[in-house]
Amino acid sequence: MIESIASALDWLGIVVFATTGALAASRKQMDVVGFALLATATGIGGGTLRDMMLGLLPVFWVSRPEYLIVCITVACVMFFVAHIPQSRLRWLLWLDAIGLALFAVTGAERAMAAGAAASVAVAMGVVTATFGGIIRDVMAGETPVILSREVYVTAALVAAFVYVALMLTGASRSLAMVSGFTAGFALRAVSLYWGWSLPRYKARPPGGLPPA
Amino acid sequence: MIESIASALDWLGIVVFATTGALAASRKQMDVVGFALLATATGIGGGTLRDMMLGLLPVFWVSRPEYLIVCITVACVMFFVAHIPQSRLRWLLWLDAIGLALFAVTGAERAMAAGAAASVAVAMGVVTATFGGIIRDVMAGETPVILSREVYVTAALVAAFVYVALMLTGASRSLAMVSGFTAGFALRAVSLYWGWSLPRYKARPPGGLPPA
Amino acid sequence: MIESIASALDWLGIVVFATTGALAASRKQMDVVGFALLATATGIGGGTLRDMMLGLLPVFWVSRPEYLIVCITVACVMFFVAHIPQSRLRWLLWLDAIGLALFAVTGAERAMAAGAAASVAVAMGVVTATFGGIIRDVMAGETPVILSREVYVTAALVAAFVYVALMLTGASRSLAMVSGFTAGFALRAVSLYWGWSLPRYKARPPGGLPPA
Repeated sequence: MIESIASALDWLGIVVFATTGALAASRKQMDVVGFALLATATGIGGGTLRDMMLGLLPVFWVSRPEYLIVCITVACVMFFVAHIPQSRLRWLLWLDAIGLALFAVTGAERAMAAGAAASVAVAMGVVTATFGGIIRDVMAGETPVILSREVYVTAALVAAFVYVALMLTGASRSLAMVSGFTAGFALRAVSLYWGWSLPRYKARPPGGLPPA
Repeated sequence: MIESIASALDWLGIVVFATTGALAASRKQMDVVGFALLATATGIGGGTLRDMMLGLLPVFWVSRPEYLIVCITVACVMFFVAHIPQSRLRWLLWLDAIGLALFAVTGAERAMAAGAAASVAVAMGVVTATFGGIIRDVMAGETPVILSREVYVTAALVAAFVYVALMLTGASRSLAMVSGFTAGFALRAVSLYWGWSLPRYKARPPGGLPPA
Repeated sequence: MIESIASALDWLGIVVFATTGALAASRKQMDVVGFALLATATGIGGGTLRDMMLGLLPVFWVSRPEYLIVCITVACVMFFVAHIPQSRLRWLLWLDAIGLALFAVTGAERAMAAGAAASVAVAMGVVTATFGGIIRDVMAGETPVILSREVYVTAALVAAFVYVALMLTGASRSLAMVSGFTAGFALRAVSLYWGWSLPRYKARPPGGLPPA
């Protein structure tokens, strides 16, 4: 039961991230193959980097081509209907928040299954959740999402951290997944709803005596 | 015979892509080591990413240093003669088209030899042919080539697709290679010659009733 | 003895590169998690790419989480004191030069230990020393450091080359490390002190007869 829910949400995450890649392609007025390239890179890029660093090779989508096919299908659909979600950007951001929180949890899970330490598993969750978007922005020549003012990377960090912490304390896998996902999604949701963000670095005058 | 032709064309592809990397370095007025870095990253970057994702490690050039040496040699030569091909940009684009079509075929072939499914092999062909140029543009701070108006990624896709499709239908390896290369090169050539491109996404007004 | 000095300098290199990542985050006014992401990517990014290409998987920090912890600690400290090193940028550049020369040597060493040929080991030293900074600049949306006017990649190349050349001629490992580090650091130091750089490519008129 938890397996099939996790699997369904994993696919939802891929679809959502692929959609954001296709939307970036639409902003750049690319052709349908450009849509497919950006959608695929965004949908599976974070997990690909995670698998390469963990040595889980070949990476997950090589033995399961349905991941590629889903991303390409999303790209083809979006090529014709991209104007619809663009006018519903708010709605897409909420779906993206689901994908972010879910990939953080499943990324950390895959790292723990490969025997990684707790801190490494959290880092792998963050990589899985965020690098798809980073790759998308670099390939599309856009400002990297991690520079945005809203809570983004932090939500992924919280989701992965809560999942790993609960697993270490002996909680059931389903409780850990649900809690991690909920914590990360809630944080991102609060940030989206109220425009909330963490305190940012502010430039200060250099050290030494203050100006007289 | 087919082996030695394929090998010769593979080397030609490396030389051509390394040349485009060196030209990017010349546009940025880098020193000769910068030329070498960009030429090498462009010449072997796509194949490196492909090998890492497939788990064919260490990547191909680690056990065959001649790949590095060729790229560095190209960089050193171009440092002194870059003004010549720049004035013959048209001629270079045609060589680049050869490299693109060839890498798409050899990339797909290497993935099939590693046991990848057909769709994955096509994707690996596209990665091999295009990511060298993407890495070059990111490192040189230039607009990514995949955003260009001409057919580029699509030509790589067609070359890899034709190769894989013919291999699946039992065609000889030499026929599949020649056909895939020819299809991809011809498509790119047509696009270069007539400035032809695929239909692009056009922004439309959001869903709902059209304005009165 | 040489082991513990090499290890101490390796940690110093990580701290210094993580510091430059955190400084990039401060220039972009990111939150503390952004500081941690950029500091970590800069501190361990070059070695991660090296390990992935060599097939030394999982990459070095997966089995040794203290690397992550050091980078994150640096990020947290810098979040509160970034205004101090910013006013002492000159001082930081010298530390960075230490990290660059050291990573070039240790990167080449790790490649040789994995059985790579001499030219490949030099290339891996350059990758280890420079790609952390390249990844930092791409993620922060800044102009890539390799385009800077000063000697940078060349210093890494010289450090790795001297180390590998001495190892091949049968010199002791400690002599090779010290010589490689000194050569690379000295070159970078000279460049920083006198603003010295290699001759750069200069655009010339296209081939053919000169204008009358």
